Amino acid sequence: MSLLITNIGELVTNDPAAAPGDLLGVRTDAAVVLTDGVVSWVGAAADAPAADEVFDARGRAVLPGFVDSHSHLVFAGDRALEFQARMAGESYAAGGIRTTVAATRAASDDQLAAGVARHVAEMRRQGTTTLEIKSGYGLSVDDEARSLRVAREFTDETTFLGAHVVAPEYADDPAGYVDLVTGPMLAAAAPHARWIDVFCERGAFDEDQARTILAAGTAAGLKGRLHANQLGEGPGVRLAAELGLTAVDHCTYLSDDDVHALRDAGTVATLLPGVEFSTRHPYPSGRRLIDAGVTVAVASDCNPGSCYTSSLPFCIALAVREMGMTPAEAVWAASAGGAAALGRTDVGRVVPGARADLTLLDAPTHVHLAYRPGVPLVARTWTA
Amino acid sequence: MSLLITNIGELVTNDPAAAPGDLLGVRTDAAVVLTDGVVSWVGAAADAPAADEVFDARGRAVLPGFVDSHSHLVFAGDRALEFQARMAGESYAAGGIRTTVAATRAASDDQLAAGVARHVAEMRRQGTTTLEIKSGYGLSVDDEARSLRVAREFTDETTFLGAHVVAPEYADDPAGYVDLVTGPMLAAAAPHARWIDVFCERGAFDEDQARTILAAGTAAGLKGRLHANQLGEGPGVRLAAELGLTAVDHCTYLSDDDVHALRDAGTVATLLPGVEFSTRHPYPSGRRLIDAGVTVAVASDCNPGSCYTSSLPFCIALAVREMGMTPAEAVWAASAGGAAALGRTDVGRVVPGARADLTLLDAPTHVHLAYRPGVPLVARTWTA
Repeated sequence: MSLLITNIGELVTNDPAAAPGDLLGVRTDAAVVLTDGVVSWVGAAADAPAADEVFDARGRAVLPGFVDSHSHLVFAGDRALEFQARMAGESYAAGGIRTTVAATRAASDDQLAAGVARHVAEMRRQGTTTLEIKSGYGLSVDDEARSLRVAREFTDETTFLGAHVVAPEYADDPAGYVDLVTGPMLAAAAPHARWIDVFCERGAFDEDQARTILAAGTAAGLKGRLHANQLGEGPGVRLAAELGLTAVDHCTYLSDDDVHALRDAGTVATLLPGVEFSTRHPYPSGRRLIDAGVTVAVASDCNPGSCYTSSLPFCIALAVREMGMTPAEAVWAASAGGAAALGRTDVGRVVPGARADLTLLDAPTHVHLAYRPGVPLVARTWTA
Repeated sequence: MSLLITNIGELVTNDPAAAPGDLLGVRTDAAVVLTDGVVSWVGAAADAPAADEVFDARGRAVLPGFVDSHSHLVFAGDRALEFQARMAGESYAAGGIRTTVAATRAASDDQLAAGVARHVAEMRRQGTTTLEIKSGYGLSVDDEARSLRVAREFTDETTFLGAHVVAPEYADDPAGYVDLVTGPMLAAAAPHARWIDVFCERGAFDEDQARTILAAGTAAGLKGRLHANQLGEGPGVRLAAELGLTAVDHCTYLSDDDVHALRDAGTVATLLPGVEFSTRHPYPSGRRLIDAGVTVAVASDCNPGSCYTSSLPFCIALAVREMGMTPAEAVWAASAGGAAALGRTDVGRVVPGARADLTLLDAPTHVHLAYRPGVPLVARTWTA
């Protein structure tokens, strides 16, 4: 089965060869053919080969499907009251995570899967075609393992985040909790995960603990990533660079040394502006990172506590309004950047051989994602 | 034909009698009956009368349809490039309006109507059931009259805004343009309009011109409203209060005297936070106005220049994040507040006798509109 998409107002390829000097590799003359879940041809519409079906984009923009490299979708309950209190002046603290842990533990597997399914469908409607899902609201051997089993039903990009916060049962014995995470919990989680992650932050895990947990995960065949420098400067970003991790997420508070370390290591800085929106923390500067030569991704961090948006279009608009990024940089960061943050080259681009994951906008150009904030502009997606 | 809506997780009535002390008059036990376009019954679900049809809300929130009291939907073209330049550092100036004037004049009636239809449908999908539409991109007798004729196909709340900026043909003769607006243009526009509006701002019209135009409009049977204090402090807000106008819109830069004048006059302050988002101007404080006793509305200002969002859910999220309003205050401002800004009591509330305009959220409470920013949460609307 092949599908020819034609009459495209603007095709964002993220392929530097498609339009030299243009970050997004935009073509305005192009058509695309998808065959059996893969992009099989990209070229001038006038040269398009025949296909089994034809889709007329009627002048609208076609983009790579968004790649959301950071979400926490396995949870139960919500924290709307905590959000309300925060908007009334209370500050965000990592400890609120424990509220969701209690609700998640009390939920059945089916309830958790239904929640993930609902949120994944919501993301899909907003243009996301690849997403990462973390555990981290189980915090027991069984609950972390089942969180990852549930997540794995929806994506291959699953991340073991037993080290989200110290489980309540270990409040007085954080070292004992690290032993649990690196021992039986890791053993139970590893078969269902690709990545291991640690929330390296005051109130969660310190540098030594993060090192220990990442080393254990690597030994178990997982790849490391980190939550770091969300609530203040700290050692997490430099640790990520030192270890050569693929990505480090949040990066809200960065010293110049942090920025240089990210650049030199080639570690992707994943910015999560929905968090700053929903916690009233200051936004990180995407401009500063890009100007320094750091690769930037933008992701949702969809979770019931610090950021309950699932919308990458919204995050793109924030990246432009609040983080000094151009619309092109923000769109790149939410597609090719997200792919880089997951170490992937088969998504986030529209090139022959890539997965057939595309997003159609109800708008003529990618700029409208920032120009029309909050408006549901995604007309449809195609997925492999 | 009657419809019973039941199993409502939260019914926002905006009826103080429904839940004393609660701004939104929230009921968690309620059902609603709609009969022939009118709310015919509101009460405890256990007491609900029989109806021809039953809709099961499955625990989701039902709100009054949003009332968007400020939009500029009669236009052609877009200004995505101007937006991009602004995000790259250029400042917003009222003069950019003339770009849209040229495109609008060049468009056919059918093209203008198709654009309005598309944007009205987009608003409806985001929960707006009543909207105001202004002219103001014609700036000639014929183009203003036809803009209002087109707008009137979609709403009774049409506003003559010939005094948006001075038409390009009168760049050297602003007094001549005021004569045109108050003379033949008003005569041609008045049959199709309910309101008359003036952009009272440096670069547009000054206090004396605004007075003259509003007086002429009032003499022609229109009700006055104003754009004022968007780009800096000025006389517009005090003029609106002095004239006892129903509403004055923007109110971004206010002195204490302005705030007191609004309170004393009972003039609604309509805040348009999408404009500040899209121009990077500082946000006005909704908190300050509410604490001072001023009635606050929140509207979209959907237009291709300073703010191309059509989403009241997005504006509600901004009102909470950026303007110090609680989720309840923001939801009230976008429904009952918008109704007050249009001098209406038949919309913006769910009470017997009101129009059957309701919005169903894919969420259990109104708080989620702020808690889940950017997410398309409107499941459906009902309209009279």
